[in-house]
Amino acid sequence: MTDRPESIRLNCPVPHQDPPVIQMAHGGGGRMMRKLVEGFLLPEFQRGTNVESGPPHDSAVLEIEGVRIAFTTDSFVVNPLFFPGGDIGKLAVCGTVNDLAMSGAVPLYLSCALILEEGFPLESLQRIIESMQQTANAIGVRIVTGDTKVVDHGNGDGLFINTAGVGLVKSGLDISPASVRAGDRILINGDVGRHGIAIMSVREGLGFEGALESDCAPLSGLVAELTALGADLHCLRDLTRGGLAAALIEIAEQAEVGIRLDESSIPISSQVGSACELLGLDPLYAANEGRLVAIVSESVADQALAIMQQQTEAPGPALIGRVTGDDSCDVELLNAFGTGRLLDLPSGQQMPRIC
Amino acid sequence: MTDRPESIRLNCPVPHQDPPVIQMAHGGGGRMMRKLVEGFLLPEFQRGTNVESGPPHDSAVLEIEGVRIAFTTDSFVVNPLFFPGGDIGKLAVCGTVNDLAMSGAVPLYLSCALILEEGFPLESLQRIIESMQQTANAIGVRIVTGDTKVVDHGNGDGLFINTAGVGLVKSGLDISPASVRAGDRILINGDVGRHGIAIMSVREGLGFEGALESDCAPLSGLVAELTALGADLHCLRDLTRGGLAAALIEIAEQAEVGIRLDESSIPISSQVGSACELLGLDPLYAANEGRLVAIVSESVADQALAIMQQQTEAPGPALIGRVTGDDSCDVELLNAFGTGRLLDLPSGQQMPRIC
Repeated sequence: MTDRPESIRLNCPVPHQDPPVIQMAHGGGGRMMRKLVEGFLLPEFQRGTNVESGPPHDSAVLEIEGVRIAFTTDSFVVNPLFFPGGDIGKLAVCGTVNDLAMSGAVPLYLSCALILEEGFPLESLQRIIESMQQTANAIGVRIVTGDTKVVDHGNGDGLFINTAGVGLVKSGLDISPASVRAGDRILINGDVGRHGIAIMSVREGLGFEGALESDCAPLSGLVAELTALGADLHCLRDLTRGGLAAALIEIAEQAEVGIRLDESSIPISSQVGSACELLGLDPLYAANEGRLVAIVSESVADQALAIMQQQTEAPGPALIGRVTGDDSCDVELLNAFGTGRLLDLPSGQQMPRIC
Repeated sequence: MTDRPESIRLNCPVPHQDPPVIQMAHGGGGRMMRKLVEGFLLPEFQRGTNVESGPPHDSAVLEIEGVRIAFTTDSFVVNPLFFPGGDIGKLAVCGTVNDLAMSGAVPLYLSCALILEEGFPLESLQRIIESMQQTANAIGVRIVTGDTKVVDHGNGDGLFINTAGVGLVKSGLDISPASVRAGDRILINGDVGRHGIAIMSVREGLGFEGALESDCAPLSGLVAELTALGADLHCLRDLTRGGLAAALIEIAEQAEVGIRLDESSIPISSQVGSACELLGLDPLYAANEGRLVAIVSESVADQALAIMQQQTEAPGPALIGRVTGDDSCDVELLNAFGTGRLLDLPSGQQMPRIC
């Protein structure tokens, strides 16, 4: 035997558990997932290479024969497969298109890999594939390659979908945390928490499902308009697992800046607000699938807001905060009385299998 | 309600079953999987586009700003996760690298998306990730983007891995069934059936596991040498689910040619032969993960064989047959007495969850 158990113990993101195993929270977008990814998976994937990769971003930007290609992947395990405002198919297209868009890329091509469980109804599969194709057509991306696997009944959960995506990054753009500067303004394109709360409402059998729909939507159109801001567009991040809070905490840490948010300016619908009270959840940490934050130079903040208002059907694009001059890596939320509290990454997760 | 149940019935790859559901054979590489993919999934993915895609090949070849990019995806659900000669991690890297190589691409970048089941041992995850990284380093590809999802205990099977891949296709190459011509020679780079039979032997508890190892290996190095044959290299296909038989039947149908094989020239190890007799399996239909057929002009057949012999550690690169002048789409196997039998795609599958 090797000394593996010992080395594992050192890397283990779950202290005090022996032997260490995967827990639901490792997929939740919080601190445990970050430890697994940044403390374990990324170092493994860099072992033996001479590559020091930067902090993980939504997609990798690669230069192939002088052409800048964005490349990303996402698996979708959402439960239930159909939910108010969408389904796993729409989610699988939007999720990967949005990851490409966050690096400023124009999404071009997607792959689609299905893991089907024996006994899964073909009628449901047809609805989901139709939904993928309709969403892809509306965005203008093509699903060009795929794979189909079947696992025996009891060893899957109906359907898991992986989509990987390839996009084109125009030269001159460097949309990443590294471009964030003190004084930058932070904007959001709509109200937060819809996707997570819509899914949790279905699971918990809450009554207002009908009115409360996921915000699941492609963001590539909006991003195409925002890239017209050129070098004043510093960073984009879609607000998926972990919600607005996790996204801004990650950006603050990666950019080594402080962020100050004005709580009253963060748009939250009354339904999401009520559901969160009922379920004991915080909308700032709830998943979104059609929301992004844009961090821009102060000089173009109004212009960015106007673009968001033009491009967004949802209510409430808003200027929600700014980047401060300190390098605290803190995200501070100021309430209406000017009192601040620091946002922290949750250790585990609020909501399992949200995407 | 819509008329969906009726339209489904028409598309249904499983007649006489109502409501139609996914069966294990839909993932087996045989006729049922082809009906699902070609009769149902591909038409859906072309709906609303003006694209008529050709027959499905191992990867899509895309032109982005004048650069030819190969793009492919594969999910891996192999059971068991560790097997003689490899593990799911090595398989996930080789499988996608090989799909890229089959279009003549130089594999460059991979994604890695993990679907982990709650309770999965981190020690096993570490071994698998190490295996992925070692394999990737040996090939010279980089794993540059990833995703991690966790599903609750009982709704996964330990670990599923998706890898998507991006490669560069040199201009001038058109390696596809469309390039196959009458008189072409068919070569194989080693003995068939090792991967499938190694996995089945473990599952069935047969004794010779130790000696019988999967052929799981990257084929990109061999393909790089073969592309030196230029336009005389007509088609490449790796022999995964469905084995040598399924691969050649597909090529014959896509190229609209006949294929004649010399049975005695097809290399089969004695262990694979014995195991197949014991298990009632046909080695020509057993999965491989490090074998390809190359279809080349007659004039370069000897040169291609010499390249294979130089590049391959495994015994038995061989010239196994030729493309005939008829357009029967038949694959005929001639035995030592000159008697022929036609190979047919199995309706279901010999081996579930082989990759």
